[in-house]
Amino acid sequence: MNKFSKEVMSVGEMASGTKLTVPVYAFKGKNNAAASVYIQANMHGAEVQGNAVIFQLLELLQHCNLQGNITLVPYANPIACNHKNGEYTLGRFDPITGVNWNRMYHFDESVIEPFVQQYLDASEEEIKDKFQQLLLSEVENKLKHSTWGLTTGQCIAYQLQRLAHQADIVLDLHTGPISSKHLYCPEYAQASAKYFDIEHTILIPNDFDGAMDEATFCPWWSLQQAYENLGRKFTMGQGVFNKESFTVELGSQEQIDLDVAKQDALSILSYLQYQGVIDNKQYQPQKMTRYAGYLKDYKALYSPMGGMVDYLAEFGKPLAAGEPLVRILRMDNYGDGDALHYVSLEQEVIPILHFASASVNQGTELYKVLCNYFEL
Amino acid sequence: MNKFSKEVMSVGEMASGTKLTVPVYAFKGKNNAAASVYIQANMHGAEVQGNAVIFQLLELLQHCNLQGNITLVPYANPIACNHKNGEYTLGRFDPITGVNWNRMYHFDESVIEPFVQQYLDASEEEIKDKFQQLLLSEVENKLKHSTWGLTTGQCIAYQLQRLAHQADIVLDLHTGPISSKHLYCPEYAQASAKYFDIEHTILIPNDFDGAMDEATFCPWWSLQQAYENLGRKFTMGQGVFNKESFTVELGSQEQIDLDVAKQDALSILSYLQYQGVIDNKQYQPQKMTRYAGYLKDYKALYSPMGGMVDYLAEFGKPLAAGEPLVRILRMDNYGDGDALHYVSLEQEVIPILHFASASVNQGTELYKVLCNYFEL
Amino acid sequence: MNKFSKEVMSVGEMASGTKLTVPVYAFKGKNNAAASVYIQANMHGAEVQGNAVIFQLLELLQHCNLQGNITLVPYANPIACNHKNGEYTLGRFDPITGVNWNRMYHFDESVIEPFVQQYLDASEEEIKDKFQQLLLSEVENKLKHSTWGLTTGQCIAYQLQRLAHQADIVLDLHTGPISSKHLYCPEYAQASAKYFDIEHTILIPNDFDGAMDEATFCPWWSLQQAYENLGRKFTMGQGVFNKESFTVELGSQEQIDLDVAKQDALSILSYLQYQGVIDNKQYQPQKMTRYAGYLKDYKALYSPMGGMVDYLAEFGKPLAAGEPLVRILRMDNYGDGDALHYVSLEQEVIPILHFASASVNQGTELYKVLCNYFEL
Amino acid sequence: MNKFSKEVMSVGEMASGTKLTVPVYAFKGKNNAAASVYIQANMHGAEVQGNAVIFQLLELLQHCNLQGNITLVPYANPIACNHKNGEYTLGRFDPITGVNWNRMYHFDESVIEPFVQQYLDASEEEIKDKFQQLLLSEVENKLKHSTWGLTTGQCIAYQLQRLAHQADIVLDLHTGPISSKHLYCPEYAQASAKYFDIEHTILIPNDFDGAMDEATFCPWWSLQQAYENLGRKFTMGQGVFNKESFTVELGSQEQIDLDVAKQDALSILSYLQYQGVIDNKQYQPQKMTRYAGYLKDYKALYSPMGGMVDYLAEFGKPLAAGEPLVRILRMDNYGDGDALHYVSLEQEVIPILHFASASVNQGTELYKVLCNYFEL
Repeated sequence: MNKFSKEVMSVGEMASGTKLTVPVYAFKGKNNAAASVYIQANMHGAEVQGNAVIFQLLELLQHCNLQGNITLVPYANPIACNHKNGEYTLGRFDPITGVNWNRMYHFDESVIEPFVQQYLDASEEEIKDKFQQLLLSEVENKLKHSTWGLTTGQCIAYQLQRLAHQADIVLDLHTGPISSKHLYCPEYAQASAKYFDIEHTILIPNDFDGAMDEATFCPWWSLQQAYENLGRKFTMGQGVFNKESFTVELGSQEQIDLDVAKQDALSILSYLQYQGVIDNKQYQPQKMTRYAGYLKDYKALYSPMGGMVDYLAEFGKPLAAGEPLVRILRMDNYGDGDALHYVSLEQEVIPILHFASASVNQGTELYKVLCNYFEL
Repeated sequence: MNKFSKEVMSVGEMASGTKLTVPVYAFKGKNNAAASVYIQANMHGAEVQGNAVIFQLLELLQHCNLQGNITLVPYANPIACNHKNGEYTLGRFDPITGVNWNRMYHFDESVIEPFVQQYLDASEEEIKDKFQQLLLSEVENKLKHSTWGLTTGQCIAYQLQRLAHQADIVLDLHTGPISSKHLYCPEYAQASAKYFDIEHTILIPNDFDGAMDEATFCPWWSLQQAYENLGRKFTMGQGVFNKESFTVELGSQEQIDLDVAKQDALSILSYLQYQGVIDNKQYQPQKMTRYAGYLKDYKALYSPMGGMVDYLAEFGKPLAAGEPLVRILRMDNYGDGDALHYVSLEQEVIPILHFASASVNQGTELYKVLCNYFEL
Repeated sequence: MNKFSKEVMSVGEMASGTKLTVPVYAFKGKNNAAASVYIQANMHGAEVQGNAVIFQLLELLQHCNLQGNITLVPYANPIACNHKNGEYTLGRFDPITGVNWNRMYHFDESVIEPFVQQYLDASEEEIKDKFQQLLLSEVENKLKHSTWGLTTGQCIAYQLQRLAHQADIVLDLHTGPISSKHLYCPEYAQASAKYFDIEHTILIPNDFDGAMDEATFCPWWSLQQAYENLGRKFTMGQGVFNKESFTVELGSQEQIDLDVAKQDALSILSYLQYQGVIDNKQYQPQKMTRYAGYLKDYKALYSPMGGMVDYLAEFGKPLAAGEPLVRILRMDNYGDGDALHYVSLEQEVIPILHFASASVNQGTELYKVLCNYFEL
Repeated sequence: MNKFSKEVMSVGEMASGTKLTVPVYAFKGKNNAAASVYIQANMHGAEVQGNAVIFQLLELLQHCNLQGNITLVPYANPIACNHKNGEYTLGRFDPITGVNWNRMYHFDESVIEPFVQQYLDASEEEIKDKFQQLLLSEVENKLKHSTWGLTTGQCIAYQLQRLAHQADIVLDLHTGPISSKHLYCPEYAQASAKYFDIEHTILIPNDFDGAMDEATFCPWWSLQQAYENLGRKFTMGQGVFNKESFTVELGSQEQIDLDVAKQDALSILSYLQYQGVIDNKQYQPQKMTRYAGYLKDYKALYSPMGGMVDYLAEFGKPLAAGEPLVRILRMDNYGDGDALHYVSLEQEVIPILHFASASVNQGTELYKVLCNYFEL
């Protein structure tokens, strides 16, 4: 049975001095050449199912044939995770500033060019080592040498990012509000998506917007492009650039289900088996129809009015053009106006998630849907 | 087809001067002797399904053979209904003061004794008229002659109560957090509970704690007791005391479902048919096993620890002593403590509702359960 | 220099498992006969100045001639103290339930009668010991033997109350929203109020409503009355009944000022010197005009409209009848209505505190004022 | 006495159907050639003093010699303005999404290049007219032709922007948390800053980040640069480019003071007199030392620890290097660590504002300060 280490990482302090800590679990693999993995959960406070998945992974990994190193971090953001407001967890953004907790990671594109100049002809191994060191030292500098200090979210994010940059593969476990399972996957890693038991994949480009997945794959993608621009050709997903990061959306927020978590853990093991992080052939992807689409085709529909929403469109099934996604109840109009309003789209889409509450303002996001989807 | 009137009642103002209004729908019955009804929904902001039930009632009542007057008020509390915090509606209490919106109605027990002295030998009709006038003037006084003003919640509650006191039957439509349907019913009205298509009834005593149902049945119950103490015997639920108030819990909060609302509307029509408010024999209660228990046996179970809760116990089914209600995940303990904790009770109970979120503090209410239940 | 002990008391857990702890500082006095003292601060999250006062007390008490034991607890409620929402601290009530944190202490009046029967002729010392033991065991029972668990707030409150019941004198340090300094004082302890450097005192009766001060003085007052009813006469504030509890309102919330805290600490030392807890004659009350009034005359004024409030009335100065307390701006009315509304009262009052924000709903508490005040 | 018109603009709807409206006041000037002005207040919910300033401006402008048109919009964002959470107004960001309300205005830089190509040799007047039409039609398109809808904040912002684009001069009235008065001013408009009675000016570059001031001056600045790149030279602040936008920070949030508002109104009239919008020579700027600095030198200092902050540094006065800005109280450390921590900077700065509450997390913004300032 594989042993794991456990450390407690301090990520912040609250007004009473209460320390905020995060447990860090780590397995050592037996094969230095195997890819290493970083998995975290619960960066957004209400998105708790990933903690249960990490529980099941810890249970299962103790019995795996481990090749690569694996680090697992539940409760990644204890401020968000503990912030109740009313019965729910107000955890998508810093309650003081409104900044999305998953938009505070660091990547400074300007480091790429000088690096490539310096290591234009370096060996693959050296490139990988030196660039990883560069990414780590960038984060270290942020953590240690900020005259003006760091925001609460940066302080948490940079410490997590320091762990993540040490791995080849990063899985950031999230959930939607009320949602089907779906996967954010870099465009170059499309082939990997079918090893997860997740029916919907959103393919994302090389645009850094502050999220963990972007913060860990964009630097390498930009590096690869910079080399290519100078004539040295590498392929993303191979060799030095065998770097993949995913945001794994596990379903709906505000709930945990340990049985479903077991299935999600098996799905992740299937991917790790494919990547050679473990050597356990029993972990294979399930057969299912997998759809994918590009991020630019993953669209939010905003409510044309305030009201109470009866969400009609089922997740994961193509919805024909003109079919209603919602009907909105407006009791104040009953008797002298339309009390029911149907909202539909002029194209076929796959509904992926919807808002967590029936009550919406004009302009609240009702659904997110995938347009122009295709089979993986 | 029956016509209804619609009025807009102003219940408050916000900081920008925005008026908060409530639509009031009213049907006139053809039979002055028939019982009159007041139905409201959404006093708690997140409990929106009642609005959909009122929609369906308005649709159905237009085709009923109306005997008594019926007043319907959706969106009873627009401050609560519109108060989003994060994705959810923070609506069980005034966001400024923390006071539960459904604990601000008025009843001053001290008016009973002098009334009974004055009308000891009055006719039933006079007692009913004069006492109703007294209740209304009590509320009017609160609304009009408060030197020091009224709280935001009182201002809303008293205006609703003014409408409710004009009816014989009051239905206050609520929901639980995540919940089965259940009914709060005064002990004396137990026989009426089986006309609703609701499997679980909580029988409540004559204790006024500020809620709408209590505010409308407790005065009459106290009056009846005061007469009885002086030797004049009346029976609750009959004649002058044919006063019934229910809090109808329609299921879970934060969602509306117009199809389920239709079923709930039919359930209410069944009760109104039984009470002679409508004369439509097609509306009959469904056959089902109905359980009831006393309020003192309707218990909350509080979490013995902080953690993430996997709610295991199903609603509405008797749960044997010792069977787990929840398992609580504590990932911080993984590896050097118990990561999973099961919580059970030492007696058989029927789980009625559970908390809305997996994330709980030590001391958060996990479940509400009915003990010592019996078949209705 | 006096030494103090420091312990860390665990009062709760959050969803991630984070322990919530409270530091408990204790000085031992040299005189067993001297009164003992319990001082806590910050039960309401935003009311932080008491922590600074405890800091200054710890500094000063090390150099006092200590007679009685003194226990000091800053950050009494770490959940409330750490709960930011936006820039402010949402800490007057449990953010999940809305229940005021200072309404969860315990006192069961029904224990008095049997106690008095049992100890009708007991010595003063025995009465004091046994009744204190009874109060402690009541709280212990609550903490240890609750089949159904305790709420988050009860769990915190009962642990603090267990400390408080061991002392003769209890000071619960609070603040108002925007406020002058004022003191809640039991009616029987009126003579003690002038030893604090606080200009306004509200005299409170023997009504238990869940607050810390009430939870610690009401049991003894009720006990004294029960003895008196049976013919054994004691005087509150003397001998076995030398029990005093105060809620000390230190000014405005959301701010600390260490220099002002020093003054407040000296004011408390003046009272402790008077009570013989310390023997340092240099600590004497300042000369000032002190006003007092009864709780029934301490009134809240609620806003007659929504709007933006310019608070005009100064704290602490008698305001003549008819003089405006506020002017309310209603820009939406400008041009076709009154944009400015003045609110006044028909009697002279002393304004004590006002609401923390200019923006109010209809029904928001504008001011609290003392009517029918008199010089102490 | 000048007349003004008043219109009510609908900007959104809440869940109950409540319409959110904004009053729009407009004066017509007598001189078509004079600059026109748009003034709004309260885009951030807690920043209410601007409403009082608009009140005073409406009072004063009725007696001015009006040259240009002036539009005034108080309560610009009724959702934010009405969103209480606890006693305070949670109004800097959308409570559902966390997005800052003042980051949702629109400017698409890509429209500049084609415009300049088309109107390279057009007259100044035509450029001004056509480009204003372009900006308006851009916003109109957003409002009317969004298949996917608009967010709540966009719906409000675009409607305000439609009004603002019709004016030459835009004043967006804000406040800091606890703050001195200060002015955000485009670099090219530096000369105008000394006509306001505001001691501190932050000079901002041509970077669009979604705010109202940027949304109205950046398009013109970019246009001017595009012309210059093609050899046609214009000067910002003159002729067609006589466009100025300011964010006027009026002091602290959560309060209104009508007397101070009068002073602020006079300060604005002084600027309007300078710009020829009114012709009333009595409105002249006060004599005061005015400091300015560049946005890149306007820095936030984040707390190195959780704790309770005693804010020491005064606003508006240069603070020497090494002088403490705050002392942070950490009672949990008392007795076995440092209970007081002082934070200072290694350079001289002018403190401009500080956080609204004493209670901070590690990473909360403590102060914003101006470095490398100079006299205007």
